Order: sequence, then C-alpha cells, then structure tokens
Amino acid sequence: MIIDCHGHFTTVPAYFRDYRKAQIEDYAQGKTSGFSDAPQISDDELREGLEANQIRLQKERGIDMTLFSPIAGLMGHHHGNEAMSQHWSRTCNNLIARVAKLYPERFAPVCQLPQSPGANPAGCIEELERCAELGFVACNLNPDPSDGHWTDPPMTDEWWYPLYEKLVELDMPAMIHVSGSCNPNFHGTGAHYINGDTTVFMQLLLSDLFKTFPSLRLVIPHGGGAVPYHWGRYRGLAQDLGRPPLAEALMDNVYFDTCVYHQPGINLLTEVIPVKNVLFGSEMVGAVRSIDPETGQAFDDTKRYIEALGLSPEDQHALFEGNVRKVYPRLDALLKDMGK
Amino acid sequence: MIIDCHGHFTTVPAYFRDYRKAQIEDYAQGKTSGFSDAPQISDDELREGLEANQIRLQKERGIDMTLFSPIAGLMGHHHGNEAMSQHWSRTCNNLIARVAKLYPERFAPVCQLPQSPGANPAGCIEELERCAELGFVACNLNPDPSDGHWTDPPMTDEWWYPLYEKLVELDMPAMIHVSGSCNPNFHGTGAHYINGDTTVFMQLLLSDLFKTFPSLRLVIPHGGGAVPYHWGRYRGLAQDLGRPPLAEALMDNVYFDTCVYHQPGINLLTEVIPVKNVLFGSEMVGAVRSIDPETGQAFDDTKRYIEALGLSPEDQHALFEGNVRKVYPRLDALLKDMGK
Repeated sequence: MIIDCHGHFTTVPAYFRDYRKAQIEDYAQGKTSGFSDAPQISDDELREGLEANQIRLQKERGIDMTLFSPIAGLMGHHHGNEAMSQHWSRTCNNLIARVAKLYPERFAPVCQLPQSPGANPAGCIEELERCAELGFVACNLNPDPSDGHWTDPPMTDEWWYPLYEKLVELDMPAMIHVSGSCNPNFHGTGAHYINGDTTVFMQLLLSDLFKTFPSLRLVIPHGGGAVPYHWGRYRGLAQDLGRPPLAEALMDNVYFDTCVYHQPGINLLTEVIPVKNVLFGSEMVGAVRSIDPETGQAFDDTKRYIEALGLSPEDQHALFEGNVRKVYPRLDALLKDMGK
Repeated sequence: MIIDCHGHFTTVPAYFRDYRKAQIEDYAQGKTSGFSDAPQISDDELREGLEANQIRLQKERGIDMTLFSPIAGLMGHHHGNEAMSQHWSRTCNNLIARVAKLYPERFAPVCQLPQSPGANPAGCIEELERCAELGFVACNLNPDPSDGHWTDPPMTDEWWYPLYEKLVELDMPAMIHVSGSCNPNFHGTGAHYINGDTTVFMQLLLSDLFKTFPSLRLVIPHGGGAVPYHWGRYRGLAQDLGRPPLAEALMDNVYFDTCVYHQPGINLLTEVIPVKNVLFGSEMVGAVRSIDPETGQAFDDTKRYIEALGLSPEDQHALFEGNVRKVYPRLDALLKDMGK
C-alpha cells in the first residue's frame, strides 16, 4: 500500500469557508458564545468535491490512502476564544469523520484540536477523546496558537504535558502543524509552516521530553522544515550544547514527512535522515498545486521523487507504508480490520 | 583568494560582554540616555584574541580574508531604546574598525545598525554613513529588531526604503541577519537565525522590491535558511501566486552564503542555486564550534565541503572570490588598493 500521511480537506465548498469568516466577524461584533452551526454539506457534494480532486489525484498518482485532516490554514486558533475554537474544531472534525465514513479505504481521519492562545492545552482533551472514539488515528497540534506571534510556551514546556499524557494513553501521534499566519512578516505556506517545523525540532533538541514521554511520537511535516538541510548544524548544536546525539535522543520519537517539492530536496532528506524516520506525505491538494515546468509533473507529486531514489524494496515499503503503520497504530488497526 | 563573507567578532573579552549586560541592566533601572563608554580593549588584547581564534583558523583552513562584523547575537536590538542602540552600535562598529585597521589583509569591516523595534530605519543612516567613511564594506540588517516577536513591517515594506536608498547610494550590500532571540520558542542559532532567513526570502518572493531598487543586493546567510532545501516549494509558490520565476525576479539581487555545516547540505545548495548567487561563508567562530565525529573535521569548515564538490576552476573561483567582489564593490576596491 501507499499511504500519504499528510492531506487536508482543502477543497471544501466556498460556503464552508464563508461560514467561518462570518463566525469570525460575529465574534468581532461581540458574539462570544452560542455559535451557530455550519451549513450542512450534502454527501453528494462531498463526493463530488473529493472525487474531482483528492481521489482523482490519488488514482492518478497511485496513492491508496491519505491521512486526512481539516484545512491547516483554516484552523485559525488565534481567532475568537477557546469556546469558538471548540465549536469550530468540532465542526471541522465532524466533516472529516463524514469523509472517512464515505471513503473508509481512501481517507483515515486526523483531527484538529480546539487550541486557543493562552488556553491550557488540557482543554483539548475532550475533543481528542471524542475524535478517538469516532475512529480518528491522530491529531494535528499547532505549536503556535497565536498564529504568528509565538506567545505560548515551547512545546517542551510542562504546559503541554496533559495533552501528551492523553496522546500516549490513546497511542496517537501528533503532527506538529501551524495554521495560517496573522503576522504580516510570515507568509503562511512559504514561511510560517517551515519556520514552525524548524522551531519545534530545535525545542525538542534542547529538551528531555522523550525521557518523560518515551512513547510520544511527533511528526514534523514539510520534510522537517529546514532541519535536514542543516543536519550538520543540528548535530553540532546538540554536541556543543552537551545534548545527546540526535539519533539517540530524538529519532525514536520524531518523524519527518516527504512534503519537499523537488528531487534534490528528497534526495537530501533520505540521505541524512534514516528511512525509519521518514513517512511518505504530499500534502496534496495543498500549498503548491501546479506543474513544475522543469519536470512537467506536479510539484507536490512527491511519490515520483521517492520512486526515483532507487531505494531497496524494503526501504521503499517502509517509507510508503510500514513506517506510518508503526507510528499510527490506530491506522494499522483500521487497515487490519479491512483485511489490509 | 579565498574570502569568507560571514564572520562575527565572537571572541571579544568577557568584560566587553559584561559591559553590555550592565548597560541593559542600567536601562532597566531607568538610565535611558548618557550611556557610559565601553572599557577600552588594548591592541595587544585584540591581537591575542584574534590570533588564537579567527586568524589561527583562517591560516589552518586557508582562508585569506573574512568580512567581519560585530557579534550578531549581541546586537540585541530589542534592548533599551533607539539611543542605546545607537550607542551600542557605534561601540561595536568602532571595535570592528580597529580590528580591520590592525589586520587590513585579514578582515574587511561590516557594521551593525542601530535598529530598534518601531524606530524608523532612517535612524540608521547616520551610522551607516559614518561606517562607510571608516571603510566598512557592508552592513548587517536585522529583519526583526524585536528579536523574536516580529513586530516591525516586512523587509519589503516602504518602512525600510530610506535605508535601501542609502545602501544603493553607497553601493553597499546588506546581509540579512537576525540577532539573538528573546522569545523562548526560538533558540537563537538553531531556530531564529534559520527562520529569519526563510522568512525574508519569502517576503522578497512576494514583492517587487528589486523593481524599485534594481541595484540593491541582499545576502541571505546560513545557506538561505530553508530555501534551497525547499526550492521546489518556492518555485511553485511563485508560479501559483502569479509572481515571476525566481531566477528572473530575485536572483540578480539575492545571494546565499555557504554556512551549511555538512556535505549533503552544500551539495544541495550548489545543485539548486546558481553558482553566481552563492558566496563562500563559514561564520566561524560561531554557532557550531566543534568537530563532526562523522568526518573528524570542524562542522563549520565549509571550505572543505565546497572543495569536495568538484566544481570547475571558474565556478570555484566565483564562489570563493569572484562573486563576493562583485556583490561587495567596496571590498573589491579595498583589495585592489592592496594590489589584490
């Protein structure tokens, strides 16, 4: 099987985005509770949207299944208050649950969390548990609920521990994934996303988080931000700062996806990062949607880059399927239930 | 010649750092003007420090000259007010001027600017002009004077234009270089540095800055942050956002150094970025100072990685000397005056 660990439901109908805009506007006008529900998207509409986009691309590219979560850029945790974030997260997660129910062999559900700047992450547990009961296999975790101002504590702070305890209990990994940026300095997919990945990796390097939570698993998307490109810097910083070697301290708990949109980047990723720590991902339909004029193929068709690596069959299998089944045991169980 | 475009005077005596600490402490106690001067470092002390460190390494590694600027992590633009930043910048730049006078063949001076969060960048012009008269060949420009909170406008905003006009007039490039981070989320050299580079490149991608300032030249250090690793993402984003191709829009004005501390990173950098846009740099003695146990060589001995590329003699010359002389015409003039 070929399992894409990183996809968002970016192709929702326009009126779904409009609903969220209206909610944000209402909040600005003083409506801080009693939020109205989103308009219902019919099953037919869901099918049409997905089959014209994600499923079409899955078939064209030979991807069997995608770990599917709400639009990252639309999580917008900085908007409103915690109650609004709770409401919006339930709305988005329920939509993902419906998608996974319509296409259980195509999409495994991943939830967003009702984070809010300054709000204790323990407030996310109820929604995380609800999603686990609905069959979700993982969550996205925003390291910067302020969406570009980085006002909450680092991810290695005890502030986050209640959530980590629950993740460990549920045996769920988290993908570290920022939302859009409300800081004009940071373009969303061109800066804030990549910076978020780099920032959190460095936080982890400095900390003993995985001594406290030895079975916690974090996926750092977008090829690990800048980290593999600067792998020498990170190995050196760990050494200079008296931290244990990265392979020992982090690489039983941290995974990078393959959302790197050109061959040289994928070459480097798999040259410096052990295959066991790399999960196939494309984030389609996502940040970059067009055709690379240099190759004639979609920038985000990352499967091609991986296939061009000439990995051994064992390594290629690990990267496309084996690793993700290990890191996401609930996915593995779900697949086994389907006889896969 | 082999010219390192990126070095900071990181090996100042401890009492120089202590002086700055005291200045910051005094400010916190209410001393917002009339700052006392730094203790004088004797010529002998300067010589001893440099010959035991930077010059020793230059000789060991075969580097002829370094573009030398004040300690980036100590610029600390968020501390105090604009007047304190003016005072501290003059202090640091005067020290660099002394170093360049003691060792004109070893160090070409690069200044820091008296930036301050919210302070108009035009306030830096006087110090920039003073440094130009003292023989400085370039400046470092902090894209985030708040040092980790990113509260000033993007570098492409007209806010920065007075400074760009002066740089163009003086025919000086600027190296985009953040200082230390006062945001606990961002480790300085492990996150804030790299994020700063990535952030500014994306700002430039979105803007027509170089149409307004066709001769402005910006050096993005640390191998361009995450950019070369994600070159496909940036090419794709430019295309999807209706921006011109990167090669056309940015690559007559933007340069990356080679501060990437392992061979695979340097391989990727020179595979995706045209040689004309790459300047040799090591940032020694800087972020990573130890020996890579995998190679037995210093992580930051970037010259070795470049020599291992097997570039043509023309390309290698461009990367080690030719490009930097083009991008820094005042350096070129200085070298010609020395018969080089």
